[in-house]
This record gives sequence, structure tokens and C-alpha cells, in this order.
Amino acid sequence: MNAIILQKITAIVGAEFCKTDKEELHCYSYDGSKQAFLPDAVVFPDSTAQVAALLKLANKHQLPVTARGAGSGMTGGALPVQGGLILACSRLNKILEIDAENQIAIVQPGVITGEFQQELQKYKLLYPPDPASLKFCTLGGNAAECAGGPSAIKYGVTKDSIIGLEVVLANGDILNTGGRTEKGVVGYDLTRLFIGSEGTLGVITKIITRLQPLPECRETFLIQSTSLQQATQLVARILQNNILPCTLEYMDKTAIHIVSDMLPTPPADDIQAMLILEIDGHKEHVQGQVKQLKTLLQQEPHCSLQQAASRREIRDIWQARRSISPAAYKLNPNKTSEDVVVPRTRIPELVHFCEALGKRRNLTILTFGHAGDGNIHVNIMTPEQSAQNIDTVTTAKTELFQEVLRLGGTLSGEHGVGNTKSAFIKMELDKTSIKIMQQLKTLFDPNAILNPGKIFPTAK
Amino acid sequence: MNAIILQKITAIVGAEFCKTDKEELHCYSYDGSKQAFLPDAVVFPDSTAQVAALLKLANKHQLPVTARGAGSGMTGGALPVQGGLILACSRLNKILEIDAENQIAIVQPGVITGEFQQELQKYKLLYPPDPASLKFCTLGGNAAECAGGPSAIKYGVTKDSIIGLEVVLANGDILNTGGRTEKGVVGYDLTRLFIGSEGTLGVITKIITRLQPLPECRETFLIQSTSLQQATQLVARILQNNILPCTLEYMDKTAIHIVSDMLPTPPADDIQAMLILEIDGHKEHVQGQVKQLKTLLQQEPHCSLQQAASRREIRDIWQARRSISPAAYKLNPNKTSEDVVVPRTRIPELVHFCEALGKRRNLTILTFGHAGDGNIHVNIMTPEQSAQNIDTVTTAKTELFQEVLRLGGTLSGEHGVGNTKSAFIKMELDKTSIKIMQQLKTLFDPNAILNPGKIFPTAK
Repeated sequence: MNAIILQKITAIVGAEFCKTDKEELHCYSYDGSKQAFLPDAVVFPDSTAQVAALLKLANKHQLPVTARGAGSGMTGGALPVQGGLILACSRLNKILEIDAENQIAIVQPGVITGEFQQELQKYKLLYPPDPASLKFCTLGGNAAECAGGPSAIKYGVTKDSIIGLEVVLANGDILNTGGRTEKGVVGYDLTRLFIGSEGTLGVITKIITRLQPLPECRETFLIQSTSLQQATQLVARILQNNILPCTLEYMDKTAIHIVSDMLPTPPADDIQAMLILEIDGHKEHVQGQVKQLKTLLQQEPHCSLQQAASRREIRDIWQARRSISPAAYKLNPNKTSEDVVVPRTRIPELVHFCEALGKRRNLTILTFGHAGDGNIHVNIMTPEQSAQNIDTVTTAKTELFQEVLRLGGTLSGEHGVGNTKSAFIKMELDKTSIKIMQQLKTLFDPNAILNPGKIFPTAK
Repeated sequence: MNAIILQKITAIVGAEFCKTDKEELHCYSYDGSKQAFLPDAVVFPDSTAQVAALLKLANKHQLPVTARGAGSGMTGGALPVQGGLILACSRLNKILEIDAENQIAIVQPGVITGEFQQELQKYKLLYPPDPASLKFCTLGGNAAECAGGPSAIKYGVTKDSIIGLEVVLANGDILNTGGRTEKGVVGYDLTRLFIGSEGTLGVITKIITRLQPLPECRETFLIQSTSLQQATQLVARILQNNILPCTLEYMDKTAIHIVSDMLPTPPADDIQAMLILEIDGHKEHVQGQVKQLKTLLQQEPHCSLQQAASRREIRDIWQARRSISPAAYKLNPNKTSEDVVVPRTRIPELVHFCEALGKRRNLTILTFGHAGDGNIHVNIMTPEQSAQNIDTVTTAKTELFQEVLRLGGTLSGEHGVGNTKSAFIKMELDKTSIKIMQQLKTLFDPNAILNPGKIFPTAK
């Protein structure tokens, strides 16, 4: 990187907070997508003013800037695919305000999601979004990617919990969107435009979240089924029966198999699928819903309902669920993770398709995920990274996406597009949509410095 | 209007569905804001293709186009302030699909909100947004203005119930946003950008809504208080006590007075404020919440809790609540309605301010509305439309807005900006926000044909 620019960057953040040594650059080169791209420098601003000064400078010199939270993203959102600056948010890590009476909070983007939730417990409040990485991922990254998690079925995803933002634009201007009230219709809703925009329209420097009262109690159930079709059909039926769980997770036989030793009791050999279901809320509410659930399950001959009897059992169930993704490597060393969504009633067709796809293409495919909102993680595992395998996986992925779209779904529910899915977005979005989105990108970032190479297919 | 253009319009929709006679134009010249502006023609397209052809034509000839639902808006959103075409949505009035299993529906913009809700009852489903005008307002108008209503406290406003749109852009291109699933992060969230944009960015031709299961039961309460401050303080306290009503409405003494004859029992003379509170959901849940409410109210010496005992009483309570706005004319013939929002805990300060403002400026001011989400309707009544009164009201309005912003609120929670509040938006939005919003407007509508004169202050 040009020495004069580097000097100017250092003048903004201080020498200590601008790193260019190889070791440091390597630490900021990768993310959950298992790709790596080296930045030219990593900066650690500690204020909105510093972020603004950095972007103004980068914009002038057309230097790519990629904001980074914890690097736990699954689609390359935090990777500097065109080099330039990594803007690490680790020093922007303060909870600025918890207004317990009005049930809102104001935080900086580097606050760790799980730590924010723990702090809120002191106030008996809940910030619901709970991506699997919540122990280390950050609220800024969650906002940029619009992260989800098991609780989305009841509480929505990240966008449903954010009511205002402070964003630094590419030219260094500071934009405030939304505010401290949930209602508000003065001007266009810019908050949602930034959430899920993967750092391509601006850098989020402050987040106003709405909060929920912490549920009084929660009950956890395992539903084991000897029929994959019946288990997946049950998902929509539960919701149609006016039961609204705060978690409704699904795992297929392969997923169960790789984590079976972590479950409270090992599942029988004929179990084809499993659901994890949780109900939270007031005691009376939970009791009523549990009663309804039990009645419903009595009518399902292939499914058995089992209530977690202790904290330990609950911990084991979640440990098993959260371990599926890493444990998949037991099967094969190379993984392609997708997080497609279909309308709930189409899940049986989708998982049936995935089974057949695995057989047809001779691939190990496991399916699991947030069945309650139709968001199924499809992991495709291959033994080696040969050119032929890569081709086969790409073909399988394309076939999967075609099927998902045929079923009325979307290619991504919570992982985003990044650079791993950008080549596929035109399968889902028509030309008019892509054109408008690219025009929006150009409006906000005319010099294309903000996280270049993401969302939109790059010209060859 | 130019005869050739008129001929082309007629060719698109048919002569029967393009009106230029004065009587017809008058019918489409006014709305709930009590202003009137004559259009040059009113067209009644019956398909997305016709809307697209009309916009393409209008764009070519720089003809203003204002989409109109039922004209029930409060801020002039549906008024052709610069003449041109009124695009009436009354023939785009079909419920295209109710997918009860996946709890979504697809509708055209001209469907009447209340009729949609009634249709959904057959499926035991609920589309929650319930603006006071729900018997005649339309889903398209609700989406364009992001309408709210009493149920917003629990179920959110219109934007929280819409997951996808079909929009015709100014150049006639058809854009699809979102989809049939609640989750989805492929590309930017354009759905929210259009909701609340008041027809200035495109014309909505299809709406995909999410639906809720119809609550099993609902209980209605009146809380009467001899202290305005205690009643308004109670609002935040109810929510802090983990009670989540589906309605939490407030009315001050003046509002009570003008509708007191409609209430089940006339309130005592010393009543200073009243809350209407409803709890819905499963039976067990409602019972539990009612118990908590009763316990809480025992600690409030100035407030008495009264449960509606019959359908008739509930009807009377709502009749009274919904009649406040029209009944206000009993006080004085001229009304200015505001729908400001403040964080819930600041409502006591806001209503105190309004009382003092009325005294200071010698104005009759009544306050009522959706206290649960801090959204207070402030009606300023004056005896005559003299220049002096108009000045006094403008001054009072400005002072009100200043106070609302000082309290951390917003100028509008659900009525929008239209042309009645456009002069005031710069009190709330900073220069960067307005600049970005105007750039967005220009991007979507370079010839400024879509509902010109709305949201942004017009140059003098």
C-alpha cells in the first residue's frame, strides 16, 4: 500500500491501531466460509469520527474497505477479496445504553451478541437473534448479514430487532436512520436497506435494538420420527395448530448420526429424523401450548415426543444441534454449506429432493436447520477437492437452487450472498431487481470502495 | 390534458375506465386531510400490465401520477397536488391467494383491509394491522403509508406484516421484492423501501402478507384514572411487568368528554384519563396475563380496572374510541391532527406539554391514541380558519414537534408526511438523510412523475 496513504491512516487511528505485518494480515484474511484473502492493512478505529475519516480517505484514493466483526460469516462477507483495508470493529465494542423502561438499547457494532444477551439478563430483557456463533459473532456483523438463528420462528431475524442505525457512508458522511421508537414513518425506511447489505452500502457504527421481556419459562422437547416425510410434514402442522414454538429445529438421519453420542439418549436405529422444539413465555401460556403439542403428537403414529427433564439434557440437546456443522467433517473433509428457505409445507419435498440428489450425484448430503421458518441448511460433503468434485458440487448446488426456487423459496435465509453465492443470484432475482440494486450500490458508493466483489456477480 | 395523451390512456384502460368529467374528478380530489386538488383525469387499471403501460406513458410525457386507494389518508398522500393522473386502485381488488398452510396471502392493492380480515377469519387467520379506517381503507394505501392501528403494540404495523411486493416503477418496469418466505437475504431489502414511501418510488400492484393464527380469545378492559400523569405512567409500567396487550389505547379528559355518551357507563366527573386495554391469545395465556394485570392495578390507587362484560360493552368502548376523531368537531369546526410518537416513558411529559401548550396558546387540544407504542394523536381544534388562527396552529405544531424530538420521538407514527408535514421533516431528519432520500427518489423516478409534492419540501 502507498506509504503516504498509510501515513494518513496512521494519523487517523494511531500507529498502534493500524497493522500491516503479515501475521496480523493473515489473522484477518479468513472467515467461516474457509476462504482467505489478504488485506493490505487492518485498522482498528475506536469512534464514528475515525470511521468517517477513514472512509473519506479511502474514497478519495479508491481504496477498498471491508468492515469486519468476528469473521464468523459463512459466505465471505468479511473478506477483502480485492485487498485494501480491513476495518475491524473490535474496539467499537461498547453497549452505549440500555433503556430498560422503554425496552431498547444502543450498541456499537463490535459488541458480541452473546455478551449483549447476558448483560440484558440483568434487566430481565431479551435480544432474541441467536445465530449459532453467538458466543463470538458481533451485532454489527449480524446486522450487516441479517443473521438469523433458531429463535427467528417466534422473534424474527436481526432486521426485526433493529429500529435504528448510525451508518458512515462511503464519502465519510454520517447517516442516522430510524430512531428510538418502533413506529416512525417520516421519510423512507433506510434502516432495512442497510441491514443485510453486507457492508456494501455503508459501515454501521451504532445500532438501536428493540428488546423483549425475558420469557418466564421455557420447555424443551425432542421429537423422534421413524419417517422423514412425517417429521417434516409435522413442522407446518404444528404451526397450523396454533402452536408457536420459539425453536423448531430439524435434523435428518445423517445429521443425527454424527452427533448421536452427544444426545441425552442415543436414538434408535430406525429414527429417520428429529425435531427440537421449545416453547417459551409465561408459565400459563407454556403449559397451554405443551398440552396442545401433546394432543397433536398423539395423532402422529411415527413420531414420539420426549420432554427434556433437566438442564443437563437441554444442554446436551443443544450441544448436539450446534455441533452438526463442525461434526459434518467426520463424514468428509470438504463441505459446501447452503441455507436455503422454502415455504414450510414444501420442506418434505425439499428434503426428499436432497436425498435423491445425493444418490444421483453420489454425494454425502445432510439436511438440518431452522425448519420452523423453512430455513434448511444443506451440507454437501466431498472426500477431496478435485476439479471433478468441485464441478459435481457446483452442479448439485445449481440443481438444489433450481428446486428451491421451484418450491417458492430463496437461496439464502440468513447467511447472505457474499462472494460464495454471487454467481447464483440471477437465478433468484430478475434483471430489474439486480439493475435497481446495482444502481443503489452506485448511489451509495460511487467509487465501489465498500466491500467490493460481494453480492453482485463480478465481471470476468 | 393533451388530447393525444388522453387517447393513449384510453387505449390502455378503455374509455369506460378513464374519466375526465368534473363530477368524477371532484370525487377523487380530496382525502382524510380535508384538502382538495383536482386531477386532470382518473384512470382505473385492472392489471399490472395496464399500470405498467400507464406509467411508461406518463413517464414519457412527464405527467404526474398519484396512486389512490380509498382516500382515507390523513396527510394528503393520495392527492394530485400537481394535477395529472389519479391511478385509482379500485379495480385491482382481488385476493389472489390465501395459502393457509404457510400462513401467507397474496393480494392486489385495492382490497379493503377489513374485508381481507373478514375473509381470513374463514381460515382462522389474522392480518393484524387495523387502522381506524379499516372498513374502507385499502391494503395498497396501508402499504404506501405504512399504516398502523391499535394492534401495532403486539403485532407491529403494516411493514411488519408484508414480506414481498410487486411494484411498477416510474419507467413501467415491473419489480418483484421479497417473496413467499419470511426469511430471505438475497440482495437488498427493497420491500421496506417501498412501504411507507407514499407512492413516490413506484406503484404497488401486488402484496404478499404474512398472517397470524386468529387468537383464541380476547378480553377487553377499561382503566379509568383520576390522574392524567398516573394513567400515562401506567402505560410503560404495564409493559415492564411483562404484560403484552394487543391494544393499549389512551384518551385524555377532553377526548373522553366528547364520546362519554357512547361508553358503557358514563365516567365520573373526576376522571382525567382512560386506557383501553385488550389481551388476546390462547385461553391460558390470556388468563395468566389478566391475573398479572389485576395484581398490577391493585397497586395503583388512582386507577380503576373494569372488564367489559359483554360483546355490547366491547362494541360500545370501541365505538367511543373510534369516534373521538370525528366527534372532535363538536368542540370546534377546524382540526389539525398530528400523530407524533415518543418513547413510552415520555408520554406523561408529552401530554403535560400538550395541556400547557393549549393553555398558553389558547387552543383546544385533545390527546388520545396508541399509547402502547408511544403514538399519541394530538388534535388541535380552532373555531375559525382565520389567518391568525392558522398562524397560531402552525406555531403550536412547531412547538409540539420540537418537544417530541426533544423527548426522542418522531413527527409521525402512522399517518405519513404527505404534503401536510413536508415542511417540517427537516426538524427531524438531518441534511444527510434528506439528501440520500432525495437521491433515492431521483434514482427511482428521474422525471418526478410519481406523487410529486409529497414527503420532501417543495421549492418555493
